[in-house]
Order: sequence, then structure tokens, then C-alpha cells
Amino acid sequence: MAGPNGRPLRQAEIGFYPLADSQDAWLDLRTAADLLARRAISAAELVDFMLARIARLNPALNAYVTILEGPARAQAAELDSEARSGRFRGPLHGITIAVKDLIHVAGAPTTGGSRSMGRYIAAEDAACVARLRAAGAIVLGKLHTHELAGGATSESELYGRACNPWNRDYIPGGSSGGSGVATAAEMLHAALGTDTGGSVRMPAAFCGVVGFKGTFGRVSRRGVLSRSWTMDHVGSLARSVCDAALVYQTMVAHDPADPYSCERPAPEVLAGLGDPVRGVRVGVLTGPFFETQLDAQIGAAFEAALGVLKSLGLAMTPVTFDLAAEAQAAGALITIAEAAAAQDEVMRSRPQELGTDIRRQLRMAEFITARQYIRALRLRPVVQQELGELLGRVDVLVTPTTSALPTRSDGETSAESLTLFARNTRPFSMPGLPAISVPAGFSREGLPIGLQIIGRPFDEAGVLRVAHAYEQATPWHLERPTLA
Amino acid sequence: MAGPNGRPLRQAEIGFYPLADSQDAWLDLRTAADLLARRAISAAELVDFMLARIARLNPALNAYVTILEGPARAQAAELDSEARSGRFRGPLHGITIAVKDLIHVAGAPTTGGSRSMGRYIAAEDAACVARLRAAGAIVLGKLHTHELAGGATSESELYGRACNPWNRDYIPGGSSGGSGVATAAEMLHAALGTDTGGSVRMPAAFCGVVGFKGTFGRVSRRGVLSRSWTMDHVGSLARSVCDAALVYQTMVAHDPADPYSCERPAPEVLAGLGDPVRGVRVGVLTGPFFETQLDAQIGAAFEAALGVLKSLGLAMTPVTFDLAAEAQAAGALITIAEAAAAQDEVMRSRPQELGTDIRRQLRMAEFITARQYIRALRLRPVVQQELGELLGRVDVLVTPTTSALPTRSDGETSAESLTLFARNTRPFSMPGLPAISVPAGFSREGLPIGLQIIGRPFDEAGVLRVAHAYEQATPWHLERPTLA
Repeated sequence: MAGPNGRPLRQAEIGFYPLADSQDAWLDLRTAADLLARRAISAAELVDFMLARIARLNPALNAYVTILEGPARAQAAELDSEARSGRFRGPLHGITIAVKDLIHVAGAPTTGGSRSMGRYIAAEDAACVARLRAAGAIVLGKLHTHELAGGATSESELYGRACNPWNRDYIPGGSSGGSGVATAAEMLHAALGTDTGGSVRMPAAFCGVVGFKGTFGRVSRRGVLSRSWTMDHVGSLARSVCDAALVYQTMVAHDPADPYSCERPAPEVLAGLGDPVRGVRVGVLTGPFFETQLDAQIGAAFEAALGVLKSLGLAMTPVTFDLAAEAQAAGALITIAEAAAAQDEVMRSRPQELGTDIRRQLRMAEFITARQYIRALRLRPVVQQELGELLGRVDVLVTPTTSALPTRSDGETSAESLTLFARNTRPFSMPGLPAISVPAGFSREGLPIGLQIIGRPFDEAGVLRVAHAYEQATPWHLERPTLA
Repeated sequence: MAGPNGRPLRQAEIGFYPLADSQDAWLDLRTAADLLARRAISAAELVDFMLARIARLNPALNAYVTILEGPARAQAAELDSEARSGRFRGPLHGITIAVKDLIHVAGAPTTGGSRSMGRYIAAEDAACVARLRAAGAIVLGKLHTHELAGGATSESELYGRACNPWNRDYIPGGSSGGSGVATAAEMLHAALGTDTGGSVRMPAAFCGVVGFKGTFGRVSRRGVLSRSWTMDHVGSLARSVCDAALVYQTMVAHDPADPYSCERPAPEVLAGLGDPVRGVRVGVLTGPFFETQLDAQIGAAFEAALGVLKSLGLAMTPVTFDLAAEAQAAGALITIAEAAAAQDEVMRSRPQELGTDIRRQLRMAEFITARQYIRALRLRPVVQQELGELLGRVDVLVTPTTSALPTRSDGETSAESLTLFARNTRPFSMPGLPAISVPAGFSREGLPIGLQIIGRPFDEAGVLRVAHAYEQATPWHLERPTLA
């Protein structure tokens, strides 16, 4: 089996590590967790290793905008001390994460990639970070985001551009670009991102990693800068479905402080991850919206992915989503209207602190009337109904994560980039459905391609199970970019 | 004990009817239910009696805009036939209701008091009507509403004005004016209304009856014309708390067709209605918002009501609601923005079909930007938090239902009337809390005054219990207007 460049797959890629023999093994979340649990390595050693890796790789990739060296070491020391006294918090004890710089980490700056945040230092962890930290995850730092999550190129006037690790001349996607880059370049075990229209799934696809967001309302947004309060989701990026699921599940909890936080009990997504998928009904989205603007290479990879799913015994059915274009347009309108409301004070009193692209986008949003916005909001239940009926006939839906390949970076920030790259993801974000992107091949240029799997509201487990089965049947998630 | 005009209270008012001796007894919901259950009277007789009463009283009061004589008689015949074969649907079997003309009744026109609805005939009952009908309630007709629920005077260009039965020169409140009038004039056993900012409670207060709405999302709005999709509530009006509670409870059910319908199990509000209230903590709203614009006669009646509650052993505490003015303003903005979105097609293509007042209101709403609207929406959780903290320290809140007495009708429709009359109700509608208005006295002119009791989200039972205790300790709900 060969990788995208024809090179043979390395040892890690066949799923077995001679434990502790090579530090490469430490990059695998479950291997690291196992080593930590058996005290074969310490959290301090793991953090040192990751920080050294970040120091070596980040200058060229610009995934981290803040590296929390001191706090990470302190956290590691505390976790090691606990471990020595026999306390082990679970599978995330000592595992390294980092979070999109839209998410508060206590004591660290939150910039949202924007000068408008000034010298803001978060007093408290975001709810999702607090839950991961309580589970033993060590926060290595803050990750590059397109300014205020307002674009897909992950270039900001404040921090410059994050680079796609598969080819530094290309964009990594966004807005959680740093999360995609850091995950693909193995500068952490898992990353958090936020996804309003595709901002977790799209950089995951462009960087060749797994990106997952659950149903709207599952993960509290307390302590997360808001782009769209009716569509923002916190999601996880990792190098396997299982790892993304573990991190995701740890974040899920009802939080009265987030008015949209849902009260349902958290789903158990890990236990059934390996359950058989034979007979699961897959709706393959067809029709002009999903087909006419599709890149040919992505189309071919998608066809191949469908073949894999079929070979696994899933029942494939072509389906149409008539309101996809409306869902995309309404989702985009809702997003920028809500982003403008969230940035109201900045836009009124100090718009010059915003980057050109985001300022232009928000200025445009000021002309949206309440009537237009409400009409867009009212489309949501109609879209949910159509998708609900669709997901009554099939168990999951599949599309390519993006209809276009990553483009070359032109060094310009671009809020408009989202329109292009979120085409296939936003129609499912708008109704708040759980969705994942899993690696599904490479273009001729060696750039990753993603497969999107979407499920019923609150059926995170169903989405993850299909994604896991696909992943285990394909080599794509084992590929790693060649790094300096 | 004397009524508002010094006349002695009639027999009905001391809570005992010589059964079937006087048809007056049939006006009491529970007495009628008892007579029907024992087959001492038939539903057909009761419907005949009510239709005759409507024929006699409605021309002067204009509460009914559509009288469903045929369908009501057919329903009665069916229910009587069931009763003869031993089937009895429960306490609403054969009881008469009518609904605000914003709510669909199968086969009947729904006009919303607006020419813009043309000759629309509803194909299906609204969800709330279907539930009541299934429980045996007979639908006598459709009740006057301020056009599209857009004002408090209950005067419409289509149907003229509904008259306050206590003094026909005065407005009955609105927008559920016909519901208040028909309930007070005993042209039915109970009525349905809708309440966005106070449109059930205010006409209940002005007409001297009970008006109740539960927590937002409890009753489906399927089949109800929308004024504000994030604030519309269906509520019940009746001549006692118990009757309003019975009707309300029958309507509550989760409905996936209403995106805001909540999934919680329906509350059991009747069983504990008579439970002791001693020690219940009552927050009395004080501060400029509730005190500076308060009519002196209403203030005196409110003080007397507080005295009654205190004498019942409730623990009275003055409390402040700092965001009341903001909640009122944001609630009003949200309402008209959403009303404009709901009427978008009419406003674009045939605005001349709307009355002058509502057209002016909606035209104004077109200038509301999405940013303003979203900022108003985002105030809601902040208001909910303040009230949540308040309702952590006390069990219910009380205010006068309105700060002003009903005004003389000037024959003009007035969308602006809501600003004045919904002042005390809208701040609690906006966060979606359960609230009731119960009769609490009369002005020197003989016009009714209401006491508003507000509770925690989903604590309908708590609100109703306090309201019932107050009602049972006071004579006001036993008063009836003198009718021709």
C-alpha cells in the first residue's frame, strides 16, 4: 500500500508501535494514553516532546499563535504527581490538545485572530476546555483562526497565514485552519475548532484529518467568541475518528449558561464505534447543487468512497435535498447578520481594528433587515423537516466535504472564501445536524480530500460509526505530510 | 358582600347551584360538566342555550365574528350519542369553547381580523383546538381579535370593535379582545386566546376574567397565525382559575410541527390546585418601571391584593427587575420585526388589504436591521438569567396586570395601544415565563382590574396554585357584568 507520493507506508501506518521504542509512537493518542496509563512515559516527557516538535515545525506552518509552555508543563507536573499517587483521570490523562484562538483558555490571550480583541486575557477556561482539562487533557496553546472565524483561508492581518502542511503554498482551510494544520502536522493529539458553516470539517478535509461537530446545542459555547449564536458549534479534530469521538464526548454537557445548550443526556459514542455497519442506509446526495460545481478529482475520490461503503455492506441510495441552495444562502445570511450583531460595538466605535475582509463583510451585513433575517431563520425548521424526512428513509447522508480543492494562498485574507468552500457543509450546519469529515484520498497535487457524513439530530453515534468503518477500511487517515 | 355596583352577589356567587333549577347554573363549567356527566342535561341542550345567549348578547358586544351553529350542534349530537352509549370523554365532554380568530378551526374562516386573509377557510383544526375537541369541547365559533394581533383596542376595519361588557364605551383590551368579552359575558365556558406581549392577560384583566398562558413552547402553535414566532403563546380565558387550568392542561403536548414546541412532559396543574400556599414566597415587583406609570386605583387594588396574599400566609418580599424596561423594549422590537416577516408577502404585494394601524406598524418594522433584532434576541437569555435568579429567591412574582385602566374607545384601531397596555405583561412574555391574570377588583367606574402572577419556567402549577388561593379568598371572579 502506497501513500500519496508513492512512498511506502511507515510503521505507524500499519497500526502497531514497538512501544516507547520510537517517540513517533507518542503521537498516537491511544498509544500515548496507554503509555501514560502504564506510567511507561510521564506527561512531562510527552509535553516536552510535543513542545519540541512545535518549536521545530510551527515556524514554517504557523498553526500555533500562542504556545502555553509554562502552563502546559505545570499541568503535566500535576498530572504526573497524581499518577504517582495512583490517581488516573482516564484516557485523556496527559494527552495534549490545543484550541482555536476563539476559545478561552484561562490566563491566555484570546484574540480571535483580530486586533480588535486588544490585550484580552481570558479569566476562565471555556466550558469545553474546562471539561477536557478536568479529564486530564493538557492545553499546549492557541491555534490560528481566520479573523473572527470569518473566512476559510486562515490568513489574518494579525498573525499572517497558517500553511497547509501537505503543501505550504496552499491554504489549510478555515476558519479553524490552525486546528487542521496542528492536527495534520502532529503538533498535538487533538484540537478544538468551531464550526458555523463548515469551519471544522473543511480544514479537516483540506489538512487530511478527521473533523467532527455534533448536533447543535450539544457542546456549550460558554467562553467561545461568537460568530453566529444560532449556528456556532464546538468540534474536535484528530487523526482518527475514535480520537475525535473521545474528545468530543468529553466536551458534551448541558450548560444553562449557553441558552442554546440542549438538556438531553450526552450520547455514548465510543462504546458502539466498532459495531457492524452492514445494512446501514446511506443517502448519497445527488442533484445540481451537489454535482454541478464539483471538482472532478473530488468527484472521483467520492465515487471511490461510495464504493468502499458499498463493499462494507451499507445500502446506498441516491437522494435529493431540494432546499440545499436555500439552506446555504439562508445559513450564510444568518451567519453574517449574527456576526455583525456580535461585533456591533467594534463596528461602531473602532472598525479600523478589524481586518479589511471581515470589516467589509460586516459592513455589508448591516444592510440586512430584520425581516430578511427572520425569513432566513424561519427557513430552518423547513429545512429540518426536509432533512428529517430524508433521514427517516436513510440513516446517514454523504457528500464530499468540499466541492473544491484547497487553493494556492494569494497572501490575501478573504472572508468570501467561505462561500466557495462551505458550499457542501453549510446546508447541514444551518439545520444543526451532526457531521464529520474523514480523509478520503488525495488530489494529483497531493492535497487531501474529505468525505462528509451527516446524521440525524442527536445521532452522533450513527455518524461516527459509519465514519469509523470507512476509516478502518481505507488507508487515508494513516498518511502524514512530509515535514521539515 | 357586595359587587361593584353595590348589588348583592347572586346565588352563583356563593358557589352552590340548585342543579338544573336555573339555566344560569349551566354557565358554570364544572356545574355543566357535572350535569353532562350525570346526563341531567345533554350537550345539545347546552349548545342551544349558549347559541341563544350568543344571539341575544353578541350584537351589542361583538365578541363572536363567526358563529359555528351547525358544526357545534353536530358536535353536540355526536357527543350526546357517545354519552348515551356510555362513553364520556372527561370533564370537557360537551363543554363550550370558542377561539380567537387567529386560530384555525377546520371548515371555518380564519381572518385574523384582517381583510388580507381573504376568504381563507381552514382545512384543519389548530393543534390546540384538535386536542380540546378530542377531549369533548364543542367549538361555538371564532372570536374578535385586533387585526393580526397587532393592538390592544380590539377594533378592526373588518369587524368593527368588540365592546367591554362592563361598559360598552370602553375597550375590552386585546389583542384577544373577543375572548375576554365572550368569557366575561358568559357566551361560552372558556375561550382560547394568544399572548405575545400580554394579549391573553390584558383582555382578561380588562374584562374581569382569568387569563392564563404557560411557559413558552408548552402549547403548539401549529394552525395559529403567527405574530411573533419566538413569543406567541396560546392561552386560555375562563371565569375561574380552575377552568382556565383545565383547558390549558388539555392543550399541552409536544408537537414536532412547531419548532419551538418543548419536549418536556405536560405539567399536572389540576391535582395540586387547592394545595396550601402558606409560606410560598412572593416577590412584589417594585422600582420605577412598575411604579411610576401606575394608575392610582390600580395601585390601591394591587395593595389590597398583596394584603390578601399576606393574610393567606404567603411570604411577601419586595424585589426589583432591573431589566424590565429593556425586556419590554426588546420584546416589542422582536414582535414587530417578526410580525413584519410573517406579513412579508402581504406587505410587498397587497399592503392595502391591511388596516391603517397595522400597516403603519409593519412599515416601521421594515427599518429594523437584523443587527438590532439580534441584539434584542440576545437580551432574552440575559433577562431570563435575571428573572431566574429572582425566581430562585422567591416562588412567584406579582404585579398589576396592567398599569392603566381600559380607556374609552375612540373608534380608531390603534396598534400603538399595545405599548401602553402591555407594559407590565411584555417583560415577562419576552422571557417566556408562565403568567396569569386574575380578577382583583374594580375601578370607581366599575371597570375590572387584574392581578398578574408570574412563575418559574415550567412551573405552571405554582402560578395556578397561588392564583387559585387568591381567587378563592376574594369575590372578584364571581362578579358578572350587567347585560341587556
